[in-house]
Amino acid sequence: VSRPVLGIDVGGTKLLGCAVDAADPSDPLLERRIDTPADADALLEAIETMVRLLQGGLADAGRAEATGLGVGVPALVALDGVLCSATHLAGLADLPLRAVLRERLGLVVQVDNDANCAALAEARFGAAQGQREVLVVTLGTGIGAGIVTGGRLLRGAHGLAGEPGHMVVVPDGRACPCGRRGCWERYASGTGLGLSGRDAAREGRAPGLVTRAGGVEQVRGEHVVDAAIGGEAGALVVMEEFAGWVALGLANLTNILDPAVIVLGGGLVDAGDVLLAPVREAFDRLAVGTSARPLPTIEPARLGPLAGAVGAASIALPAEV
Amino acid sequence: VSRPVLGIDVGGTKLLGCAVDAADPSDPLLERRIDTPADADALLEAIETMVRLLQGGLADAGRAEATGLGVGVPALVALDGVLCSATHLAGLADLPLRAVLRERLGLVVQVDNDANCAALAEARFGAAQGQREVLVVTLGTGIGAGIVTGGRLLRGAHGLAGEPGHMVVVPDGRACPCGRRGCWERYASGTGLGLSGRDAAREGRAPGLVTRAGGVEQVRGEHVVDAAIGGEAGALVVMEEFAGWVALGLANLTNILDPAVIVLGGGLVDAGDVLLAPVREAFDRLAVGTSARPLPTIEPARLGPLAGAVGAASIALPAEV
Repeated sequence: VSRPVLGIDVGGTKLLGCAVDAADPSDPLLERRIDTPADADALLEAIETMVRLLQGGLADAGRAEATGLGVGVPALVALDGVLCSATHLAGLADLPLRAVLRERLGLVVQVDNDANCAALAEARFGAAQGQREVLVVTLGTGIGAGIVTGGRLLRGAHGLAGEPGHMVVVPDGRACPCGRRGCWERYASGTGLGLSGRDAAREGRAPGLVTRAGGVEQVRGEHVVDAAIGGEAGALVVMEEFAGWVALGLANLTNILDPAVIVLGGGLVDAGDVLLAPVREAFDRLAVGTSARPLPTIEPARLGPLAGAVGAASIALPAEV
Repeated sequence: VSRPVLGIDVGGTKLLGCAVDAADPSDPLLERRIDTPADADALLEAIETMVRLLQGGLADAGRAEATGLGVGVPALVALDGVLCSATHLAGLADLPLRAVLRERLGLVVQVDNDANCAALAEARFGAAQGQREVLVVTLGTGIGAGIVTGGRLLRGAHGLAGEPGHMVVVPDGRACPCGRRGCWERYASGTGLGLSGRDAAREGRAPGLVTRAGGVEQVRGEHVVDAAIGGEAGALVVMEEFAGWVALGLANLTNILDPAVIVLGGGLVDAGDVLLAPVREAFDRLAVGTSARPLPTIEPARLGPLAGAVGAASIALPAEV
């Protein structure tokens, strides 16, 4: 029996932790969750607490102590495990998280971006299991992504690869908090869907949406999804436009990366076919061009809320060759 | 002394062939060139002729016969060496070039897209020598590219990765022969520069350009380059816009791939700083956003016209680990 490996997904509200066995990492031996501390400085203690909970659970189950830990964080992570551009972990930029945790915990530690962790999990154990060329795109508040090539994460020269949300697709388009205009995630994320929904509401194209949300400026992405599932015409048009934006970026990425499978994750994808069907249709139209290139299939993520923690554990597992 | 390897770059007008020694592939043992036959069916014979010329040259030089051959072609090439979407080799789509050449020549044969070959050569022996994460973009009639990650070409699931020229950057933009609108190469290639030059000429923004070209509709990319080098104000504005388009795509690709070095090749880049300086400036502005991510340097290609043939040979060399 091999030693278990720990994975911790640091989210905005919760830390999700799991312990996995290398023989079947997709089915964790145990899971724990604790609140993410409001104070970023307390994050290290929270991670330490989670490790203690998981090691205790392993001992209770009669399993050996884990010696490896993977941590997924909502930040760009340099190859040496130093956090950079940590928008959602204010105050922790430049923290050498990997080195600090290794020192404090005495474990072998890997740290990566949360989307990269989830991507590796979906590629190795989830919706793209068995594929070595996989693109995982998570449509949430922004757009997260991970690129798997040759069965491994493409991390780039500095660990910052896999951020297509800031691919500019509309010059002089919608303003992005990153300082530029027209980034893909201004159109194809939950935030983007909300912006499109409010545009439609303001222009009187979606009265049902306004009623549902309680006002034009209250319209959010989830209202559009719910209204589209309910069959409201205005919302369905917004959803169709949104699917076109998602597909445009996926087609761009297909020209660059040629994946076998694109896995779509995130809350919006839980809506199912009301989004997936028009995305697939628009993708087939946009991606083919005049060439007869084989296209990837587009699959919904399969691992659910535990993808991040399982993925975090999987970056600490030996890579498959 | 190891056995030499042959490389052949199939161009629109010439076949360039070389024989290289694994010890220093960037300095070919010998080079040969013959005309590309007008009839695509005669291409196999032309390749065979080139191989005979190269093997003869090796024998004259007292070197052992080559047993490996790499061929770069202006077409998308599937992983098994079958040509697909061969716009510039009409009539050869679906040809299993690798298998056919292996059968006819009795050599170990590798076949890949010409831009991929040139990219590998620049990454291994040229402008990005020693780097393992490299993006090579060739600005010609269209845009060719090759992505090197972990020191190897990123070929994707079907061999069709590395085609960012058809990344859509302007929804409903300029029509592209691929059937879509707003592809990057409609803006950032030599063709795109010509389109922008003619737009400026039509709008009366570049009278010097019109004089130089002999008419508004005669304006081509090279006229813009020459006029910009000559310091003509209207042409410099067009060049600045063009550099912005080049930089926009490179910034998108940096967010996705995080290369250490971007190598820019193709005829336009021979113009030097009149293009490179504004591209670098626009790239630094566009790529940073609000994040402090390390950026790649942008370097001109170094291997010159022989990059394709040396790159073709290098796909037939053992990969560096």
